Amino acid sequence: MDSFDIKITRKPAVEAPVLLEGLPGIGHVGRIAAKHLCVELRAKKFATLHSNHFPPQVMIKRSGLIQTMRNDFYYWKAKEEGQRDIIFVIGNAQASTPEGQYLLSRQILDVVADSGVETIYTLGGLGVGHLVERPKVFGAVTHRRFIPELEKLNVIVKRGGLGQIIGVSGLLLVVGKIRGIDGLCLMGETSGFYLDPNSAKAILNVLTKLLHLDVDMDKLTKRAKDAERKVAEAQKMEKKMMEEMGMVQREPTPDEMRYIG
Amino acid sequence: MDSFDIKITRKPAVEAPVLLEGLPGIGHVGRIAAKHLCVELRAKKFATLHSNHFPPQVMIKRSGLIQTMRNDFYYWKAKEEGQRDIIFVIGNAQASTPEGQYLLSRQILDVVADSGVETIYTLGGLGVGHLVERPKVFGAVTHRRFIPELEKLNVIVKRGGLGQIIGVSGLLLVVGKIRGIDGLCLMGETSGFYLDPNSAKAILNVLTKLLHLDVDMDKLTKRAKDAERKVAEAQKMEKKMMEEMGMVQREPTPDEMRYIG
Amino acid sequence: MDSFDIKITRKPAVEAPVLLEGLPGIGHVGRIAAKHLCVELRAKKFATLHSNHFPPQVMIKRSGLIQTMRNDFYYWKAKEEGQRDIIFVIGNAQASTPEGQYLLSRQILDVVADSGVETIYTLGGLGVGHLVERPKVFGAVTHRRFIPELEKLNVIVKRGGLGQIIGVSGLLLVVGKIRGIDGLCLMGETSGFYLDPNSAKAILNVLTKLLHLDVDMDKLTKRAKDAERKVAEAQKMEKKMMEEMGMVQREPTPDEMRYIG
Amino acid sequence: MDSFDIKITRKPAVEAPVLLEGLPGIGHVGRIAAKHLCVELRAKKFATLHSNHFPPQVMIKRSGLIQTMRNDFYYWKAKEEGQRDIIFVIGNAQASTPEGQYLLSRQILDVVADSGVETIYTLGGLGVGHLVERPKVFGAVTHRRFIPELEKLNVIVKRGGLGQIIGVSGLLLVVGKIRGIDGLCLMGETSGFYLDPNSAKAILNVLTKLLHLDVDMDKLTKRAKDAERKVAEAQKMEKKMMEEMGMVQREPTPDEMRYIG
Repeated sequence: MDSFDIKITRKPAVEAPVLLEGLPGIGHVGRIAAKHLCVELRAKKFATLHSNHFPPQVMIKRSGLIQTMRNDFYYWKAKEEGQRDIIFVIGNAQASTPEGQYLLSRQILDVVADSGVETIYTLGGLGVGHLVERPKVFGAVTHRRFIPELEKLNVIVKRGGLGQIIGVSGLLLVVGKIRGIDGLCLMGETSGFYLDPNSAKAILNVLTKLLHLDVDMDKLTKRAKDAERKVAEAQKMEKKMMEEMGMVQREPTPDEMRYIG
Repeated sequence: MDSFDIKITRKPAVEAPVLLEGLPGIGHVGRIAAKHLCVELRAKKFATLHSNHFPPQVMIKRSGLIQTMRNDFYYWKAKEEGQRDIIFVIGNAQASTPEGQYLLSRQILDVVADSGVETIYTLGGLGVGHLVERPKVFGAVTHRRFIPELEKLNVIVKRGGLGQIIGVSGLLLVVGKIRGIDGLCLMGETSGFYLDPNSAKAILNVLTKLLHLDVDMDKLTKRAKDAERKVAEAQKMEKKMMEEMGMVQREPTPDEMRYIG
Repeated sequence: MDSFDIKITRKPAVEAPVLLEGLPGIGHVGRIAAKHLCVELRAKKFATLHSNHFPPQVMIKRSGLIQTMRNDFYYWKAKEEGQRDIIFVIGNAQASTPEGQYLLSRQILDVVADSGVETIYTLGGLGVGHLVERPKVFGAVTHRRFIPELEKLNVIVKRGGLGQIIGVSGLLLVVGKIRGIDGLCLMGETSGFYLDPNSAKAILNVLTKLLHLDVDMDKLTKRAKDAERKVAEAQKMEKKMMEEMGMVQREPTPDEMRYIG
Repeated sequence: MDSFDIKITRKPAVEAPVLLEGLPGIGHVGRIAAKHLCVELRAKKFATLHSNHFPPQVMIKRSGLIQTMRNDFYYWKAKEEGQRDIIFVIGNAQASTPEGQYLLSRQILDVVADSGVETIYTLGGLGVGHLVERPKVFGAVTHRRFIPELEKLNVIVKRGGLGQIIGVSGLLLVVGKIRGIDGLCLMGETSGFYLDPNSAKAILNVLTKLLHLDVDMDKLTKRAKDAERKVAEAQKMEKKMMEEMGMVQREPTPDEMRYIG
C-alpha cells in the first residue's frame, strides 16, 4: 500500500523545460498565478499524483461532483523565439505532515525526471499580516546568477533575511539543487487573510516577463472580487467543521477557486 | 505488529449490495442515521475492525464494561421487490491521523472486496455553525447519474462549491472510484455544536426513499432530547480530560449514544 | 533502529500475578498511587523500557542527574494468605502519539508475557474540572464478574456512560482482553488542574482492600501539600518552555514527584 | 528513500574530543553560544546532515540565497596544554516530530562514532517567562563526577527538580549514556520571549573555563541589540505565515542570526 499513486497519461513533449510550481499556500497566491497561466496557455495535462500524505478529505465541485486531493502535471511547448517549454505542477493540496512534504517534493521531481527540467520556478505568497494595495514581489534563489534579472524586474531579493519558505515551494528548490537543478521562488506580498488574486497578478507580471509570455490578465482581475466574498463565507464554515473534527486546517481553498481554471 | 486487525465471523449473504457508511463525524449525523437503520432492519454483524490508527482510548459503557474503538460490519438481505442488499460499516471511531484515514478507507473496502459492492453511500453532517430547525440534506456524487434522483428528493447537489468532505465519508468515495465503484455522500445540515438526531432523521428520510425501505423513526425522535442533555455534560468533561492529556479531541461521542442501537 | 528498547535484568519470581499499571495521566493520580504502593511494598525492579515513542525529552532530578523517559517493571511476592503476587509497571511517560500508545500497550504486555499475568489493574484519574474534596472512585471492567466486589467497596461502576479512558490505562485492558486476560480500571475523581495525591489515596483505599494489602498512607498525605506548591510553579515554567519549542505539553510531571518513591 | 542524508567531506583530525551541541531551542541560547565559539575558534566543517524529519521549509539568507535546514559538524584541534579537541554540531533545525528527535539524536552520534568522543556537552536555554538581567547558568549531568567542577563555576546543579530538557540537548545525553559516553547540559536562564545573546554569553563564560579556551566576546555583545530588534519583527511575520499554513511554529530563528557565524 504505497503512499503515492502516480498516473502518467502521456509523455510530455518538452525540451529543457522550466518546472513551474503553484500549489496551495498563503493567500493561494502561487496557486492562482500558476493555474491562470496554465489555463491561458492551454497547457496539456500529462500526469496526476494522489497521496496518502494529502489532507484526508475530498473537495465538492460546483456541480456536486467530488474532486480528489491531487497534484496535476501539465506541459506547454514554446511558440516563439526566446520562450521556453514549461511543465506545470498545480493542484489543490500539499502534504499534511512535515515528512510528507519532503516526500512529496521528491516525488514531484521523480515524475518529471525524464523531462530534462533545467530550472525550477516556485510561486507563493509572503504574508505580511496587513492589507496590501500594491503588492511587492520578493525572490529567493538557489544560485546568484538569477539575481540581476530579478532585480531588473523590481523583484526584491536582498532584504536582510525575511525568513522562510514553508512547504513544497521551498523544498522543491532544495531537492532540485541536490539533483543539480537550480531554481528560484517568487513570492507575492499578501495579507495572508484570504485568497489574493491581486498578489497573484503581481507575480504573473514578473513571471511573464521572465518567460517572455504574453498572457491575458482580464479574467484574473474580473472575478477576483466575487471570489473573495464567496470564499470568506465558505472558509468560516469549513474552519468550524474541521475544528469539530479535531483537525487542523491546512487547505482553506474551496471549490470556488476553480473559476480560475 | 500490523496496524489493522480484522475479524470476519461469517460470509455476508449479499448480492451487489450498497455499502452504507456511518462513522463518527460532525454532529454524529451519519453515525446516528446509519446505526438507526442498521438496528431497525436487524442487520447481522459479520466482521469487526480494530486499528492502531484509532484514537488511543476505550469507551466506557453504561454497564461499566469497556468498549474498544472499532468499526463493525453488518449485512442485510433485501426483503421486497425494488430493495437492495446492504452492507453497513458503523462504529465509534475514525482514524486519528491523516494517513490513517486513507489507510482505513482502503481497509474498509478490502473487507467487503468479495461482496460485489455496487454503490457506496456515505453519510455525514454539514456543520453550519448556527442552530438549524429544519435541516436540509446536501449531496455529493462521484457520477452525474445519481443527481436527478437526489434532486427529486430535494437533496441539494449543485450549490456552488460548499467545500469539503473530511474523513472516511469522502475518502471511501475516492478509493471506491479508483476501484470502479461509484457512490454518493448525503450530508445533513447541522449546527455542529452537539450530536444531532434531527439532522440524522432528515438524512434517513432521503435514504429510505432511495433504498425503498420502510423504517420506524419513533425511537430516533423519542430519545433525542434526553440524549442531547446528557451528551453536553459528558462532552465538557471529556474535553477537559483530553486537554489535560495534551491530546486533540477527535471522538466526542459518549456512550449515551448507544441508546440508538 | 527499533522503536522500543527493553532491558530485562532478572526473571520476576511470581505466580499468576496481577499486573498493576500507574503511568502519568490526569492529575497523575494513577502514577502516584502505583508508585506509593510499589515503594511501600519494597517491590523489586526487573525490567526497564525506553522508546522513541516517548516525549523527546529528559527529566532533571533533584540531584542534577538526568533521568530518561522510561517505564519500569517491578515485582512483589505475596506474603500472606489471600494476597496475590504483583507486577508493577510505572514510570514517567506514556507514548507521545496515538499509534505509539497502541504499540506501547502491546509492548508492556510482551514484557510480562512469560509471567502468567491473570488480571490487569490500571489506575488513573477522572477529571471533573472543579475542585473535589472527597474524591469518589470510578471503575470500568472488561468482565462483569469484577463488578460486585467493586460495588461493595463503593466504587461507582454503572454511571450512565462517563466517557473514555484515554491512553495506556484503557489500551492495556483492550490488548489484555484480546490475549485472554481480563482486567479493570480504577479512576480517582480529580479536578485535573494539578497532581492530586488526595485522589491517589482514594484509589489506594480501594486497591489495598481488593488486594488484601496493608500499606502506610502517612508519607502520601504528609508530602502532598508541599508537592502541590512546587509543582504548580514548575508546570508554569515547563508549559512556557514547551510552547516556545512549538511542542504540545504531554507530560506535566516534574521531578518533585520523585518524593513518592 | 532514507530519512537522513549525511555528507562527510573529510575525517576530523581529533583525539578523544568533546562533542559540543548547539541547535535551535529556547531563546536560541545554545545555538548562539555554540556558533560563536565555533566561529571564533575557526573550527573546520567536516560533515552535513539533512533530514526529512526537519521542518518542511528553507531559510532565506540576507543575500536572497536559500539555505536548507541542516545540522553541520565542525572540528577543532586543541592548541594548548589542558585544552581538548572539540567536535561541534550546530545548525538551524531540530526534528519536527517526537520520534524524529530520537532518530536525529542517534544519527548525530552515528556521524561521530569513529571520532572517539569522550564527553558530550549540550547547550540550551532555560525559559523562566520573565526578563532576566543577569542570567544564571544551570547544569544537568549524566554522572555525579561533573558536579563539583560545575559548582565551582557557579553553575546551579542541585535545584530541586526544575523539570525537563526538551529535544536533542536532552536526548543526546541519553543516547550517549547508553553508548557509554557521559555528558552534561548547560542551560542559560532566559525569558524565552526572543533570542537571547546575553544568556548565551553567560553559558560561554562557564564553557570557556571548563574547556580552558580564550575567546573574544566582543562580537557577541556588539550585535546583540541590533539583532533583537530585527528578529522581533521577522518572528511576528513568520508566526503569521505558519499559522496561515496550519503549521506549528518550531524554528523561529530568522536568517539575521547568521551575523554570529
